[in-house]
Amino acid sequence: MADQNTAADAAVSDAAASQALPDRTTNPADKDAPQGEVSKNAAKKAAKMAKQAADKAEKAANKGIGKAEAKKPTSKAAQKPKNKKIDGAALIGIDVSKEEDFPGWYQQVLTKGDMLDYYDVSGCFILKPASYFIWEEIQQWFNTHIKKMGVKNCSFPLFVSEDVLNREKDHIEGFAAEVAWVTHAGSSKLDKKIAIRPTSETVMYPYYAKWIRSHRDLPLKLNQWNSVVRWEFKHPQPFLRTREFLWQEGHTAHLTEEAAREEVLQILDLYARVYEELLAVPVVKGQKTEKEKFAGGLYTTTVEGYIPATGRGIQGGTSHGLGQNFSKMFNITVEDPSVKGDEKKAPLHVWQNSWGLSTRTLGVMVMIHSDNHGLVLPPPVAEIQTIIVPVGITAKTTDEERDKLYARIDELVTMLRDADIRVESDLRDGYSPGWKFNQWELRGVPLRIEFGPGESTGNYVTAARRDIPGKEGKSTIDIPELATGVRTLLDTIYQDMFKRAEEKFRSHRKLITNWDDFCPALNDKNICVIPHCLTEECEDQIKELSARKAEEDSDEPEDARAPSMGAKSLCIPFEQPEGIEPGVTKCVNPQCTRLAEKWCMFGRSY
Amino acid sequence: MADQNTAADAAVSDAAASQALPDRTTNPADKDAPQGEVSKNAAKKAAKMAKQAADKAEKAANKGIGKAEAKKPTSKAAQKPKNKKIDGAALIGIDVSKEEDFPGWYQQVLTKGDMLDYYDVSGCFILKPASYFIWEEIQQWFNTHIKKMGVKNCSFPLFVSEDVLNREKDHIEGFAAEVAWVTHAGSSKLDKKIAIRPTSETVMYPYYAKWIRSHRDLPLKLNQWNSVVRWEFKHPQPFLRTREFLWQEGHTAHLTEEAAREEVLQILDLYARVYEELLAVPVVKGQKTEKEKFAGGLYTTTVEGYIPATGRGIQGGTSHGLGQNFSKMFNITVEDPSVKGDEKKAPLHVWQNSWGLSTRTLGVMVMIHSDNHGLVLPPPVAEIQTIIVPVGITAKTTDEERDKLYARIDELVTMLRDADIRVESDLRDGYSPGWKFNQWELRGVPLRIEFGPGESTGNYVTAARRDIPGKEGKSTIDIPELATGVRTLLDTIYQDMFKRAEEKFRSHRKLITNWDDFCPALNDKNICVIPHCLTEECEDQIKELSARKAEEDSDEPEDARAPSMGAKSLCIPFEQPEGIEPGVTKCVNPQCTRLAEKWCMFGRSY
Repeated sequence: MADQNTAADAAVSDAAASQALPDRTTNPADKDAPQGEVSKNAAKKAAKMAKQAADKAEKAANKGIGKAEAKKPTSKAAQKPKNKKIDGAALIGIDVSKEEDFPGWYQQVLTKGDMLDYYDVSGCFILKPASYFIWEEIQQWFNTHIKKMGVKNCSFPLFVSEDVLNREKDHIEGFAAEVAWVTHAGSSKLDKKIAIRPTSETVMYPYYAKWIRSHRDLPLKLNQWNSVVRWEFKHPQPFLRTREFLWQEGHTAHLTEEAAREEVLQILDLYARVYEELLAVPVVKGQKTEKEKFAGGLYTTTVEGYIPATGRGIQGGTSHGLGQNFSKMFNITVEDPSVKGDEKKAPLHVWQNSWGLSTRTLGVMVMIHSDNHGLVLPPPVAEIQTIIVPVGITAKTTDEERDKLYARIDELVTMLRDADIRVESDLRDGYSPGWKFNQWELRGVPLRIEFGPGESTGNYVTAARRDIPGKEGKSTIDIPELATGVRTLLDTIYQDMFKRAEEKFRSHRKLITNWDDFCPALNDKNICVIPHCLTEECEDQIKELSARKAEEDSDEPEDARAPSMGAKSLCIPFEQPEGIEPGVTKCVNPQCTRLAEKWCMFGRSY
Repeated sequence: MADQNTAADAAVSDAAASQALPDRTTNPADKDAPQGEVSKNAAKKAAKMAKQAADKAEKAANKGIGKAEAKKPTSKAAQKPKNKKIDGAALIGIDVSKEEDFPGWYQQVLTKGDMLDYYDVSGCFILKPASYFIWEEIQQWFNTHIKKMGVKNCSFPLFVSEDVLNREKDHIEGFAAEVAWVTHAGSSKLDKKIAIRPTSETVMYPYYAKWIRSHRDLPLKLNQWNSVVRWEFKHPQPFLRTREFLWQEGHTAHLTEEAAREEVLQILDLYARVYEELLAVPVVKGQKTEKEKFAGGLYTTTVEGYIPATGRGIQGGTSHGLGQNFSKMFNITVEDPSVKGDEKKAPLHVWQNSWGLSTRTLGVMVMIHSDNHGLVLPPPVAEIQTIIVPVGITAKTTDEERDKLYARIDELVTMLRDADIRVESDLRDGYSPGWKFNQWELRGVPLRIEFGPGESTGNYVTAARRDIPGKEGKSTIDIPELATGVRTLLDTIYQDMFKRAEEKFRSHRKLITNWDDFCPALNDKNICVIPHCLTEECEDQIKELSARKAEEDSDEPEDARAPSMGAKSLCIPFEQPEGIEPGVTKCVNPQCTRLAEKWCMFGRSY
């Protein structure tokens, strides 16, 4: 498991690699690193600039810009820097380890990897181009697939009146505490306060009632890409829990329950494929329990992920069957198409679905794949899939030799672009190859190509995989096979990233039939799949029992973010293991006397 | 000018057309229309459904859903329905004319054309799939072009703290009265109220100060697609003046004034091309006067359009050179790259631009091209470019004959899709061809293909252009040439739409050198280009003078929306006419004693 190595281990394997392949990974910020390969003036200038930049960053930090939130999650790390700092970590690199200070690591990976910045309104974050690109890739893929299903994009307003928001009681109860209210415009007080949508069911459905005039208008399938606001008071976390977040929300209406149900599952499949095919993240598909389902809906299906570093489950995306609850509340009806002549039948309430996938996807992807060198991006969504870095330019290299090398690199770029590979070259002066390697590793570029005089003469390139540091991740590709070689390598990187994550999730999904094994398994960072009665009361008990147990039993370093958190139900997996005998198997909760209905997946969660 | 014909004229030319080509445009809602071509049962059912739908719509309207705003603009029309109703207008069609009740017409074209619906929060509107598709086309085109310029997309938060919002004084003065404030979350009062962005300069620039650490970080070119909120208290108008609107906002930082200025103009060119190449809307490029420039910026460039029906100008999109104003306020600096060794030079403040294009584009497109039959969409952005409608199916037609015809239509669809033409067929039972024609005309589909037994036997299709009603717009295409024929026709439609709009704008742009001609020209729905001193004081006088004059002089029916509105400066056109003699030519305003600096375009405007 490459991404479980500490930086020190990685350094060792890098050193080993250097015996066979050229070592170009040392960092100029490290005093022992060779600086000779850049001119003295350039090095001096770079150092001066780095100093100025650092001063400026500090000044900005003192103003609170981009650091408002940042202080809290690192405070622990700041208290014990010696335990958690990675020895010899580059100045530009991550200096806390994923294993020892996960929240501090996560924050650094995101900010130093140029994905995100903290914002001066708490709970809001800036999505920088590197992360927004990935979101655009997800948008494009998902749009293509839902348009084939007949879904159309549209845009409803950000605002919703209090009356309409409160129309569906169960639904609003689920959101009321988190609704942001606009009360003033300029210096005028509004007659009635107006809510910012926490989701758009109540925004949209009055219009569904107006637009759906006959069964011929069904199915109505609309989707929008927007942001919603849920003013959570829990500790915010980039991508995972934010007060404003980007998502898509699909809202559809169908004539029959069957048609609605079929779509719920089609969408869930697409969500699973976004995680698996684009982000190399394995998920488990299932249904939420009554306790955990969407407020106001009939049932909720979900894709659930797993964060190995914390052993916590995470809800990845949900596709809700709303039943006829909203259609009854908003009076969305059609005449029964089976009516003949002047026959009288009651109008039918439509069957509705809603489904949403958010930028949380990006957080899950980062938490699972990235390592102590920074981001590790899956090739399907990486903005730069391959970076070409010139190497072997020394003080002795003539301008002509360098220009010739750069010209060949331009040719390589063209070859790869022609093969639809997103490639860039890094020809910046004044930075050593090692410094560049570090920077592109921080940013998660899946494949680095090194190209120097040796490679040029031999008509090959040296390729270094981001997901496998050191020697093992290195290979050479002959230039005539460059495009197919790089394409194959990128595919392999994607496959391997998925396989490793899948293997971790599988091996940490424990079938538990004895309560005594439940809390120890949780404490070993597992997800527990148990025979369960599916009642809310029992879920509450399990949460309480596992919270207490966790405090009593644990020898392990506790999860920094939620040390004594109880386990929640994540989902009832569609793929049910064998072993529940109806009428015989009991619920695993020792305080529960009910029979088990299904295998249900429990875990600490986000 | 097809779109200036009244409905009555159109009906006459339709009638003429029917002598040569089959007339299939009569409407089943009209009692005189032939209904025989659909089965009696189907007709009865359709009538019943229409009745139910109408009842339901009325019920919804009574609840205020989708009609909150709608009542106001039509109130005038409602008062004098006899003057303004189009005689014999279809039940589903537009029943007020563009010439006589422009605001009422605009609203009907949008709602009946399925582009938009009114929303129960005043000033907010629903963009239905038909309009959102066009916005997506604009997004895709613009993204492609700005990405080539090195611009990257990102996402900044919706919220901005009061402190940061107020940081730039001139800027906030321009927006303060329209800022929406969030003061509560759930039932808790926030410690400090938080603004919803009216634009993102102050949201983004504190981070530019943090991120831009060296001249190597320049240019920084970011863009976002989002919505902003400006709580205007003026009467809202769909797409043109709305409290929330969708747009893109680009924000860039450059080392030099020249680099910044070059980009301002590159973007302005793209805006002009969006209007001209996608929407078939001609615009005039120019610079805003000091009075009309962006609050806090150095200068504003603009593309200005013209709405022939009202004779008013409309700002289409603006690209601002911000100069160093914001960079000084937010301290966005880099070291001077010309510094050698330990030389001391003051840090340089970066040169910034911001530029935005909104869904106003859609409103301009609709106002210019659409007619009394409904929307007329330019082929480049129409979701359905061609609709195929089966014709000539009568009571005598056997099922087999009908199936055969439909199968051939499926083949036509495939041929056109293979040629990347967005085509649909309308094989719905229970609606007459005439009813379908009307519906697709309402929705603005650029080209209708009629296909019946006659066409099938003759191996051709009948094509009917949306932009030219009646006989003149009809032609036949042999099926072997279908794809190229349709493509050519769509191109011609686009060209002709642009040419007609261009001709109207050109002929209504009057060079005025004598003040006496100014107000009469305005009242004749012209835009006036005058030698002007470019001072704010003089602009204010012209506005006042032309407002008064308009009231005194006008014989014409006044513009329904702004009868006595004064003229504002629209822009100083980049293409300056000849005739201003420096030091000699005087400003046209009779109360002004200054010399003319430039030809400046004035008009009533949106």
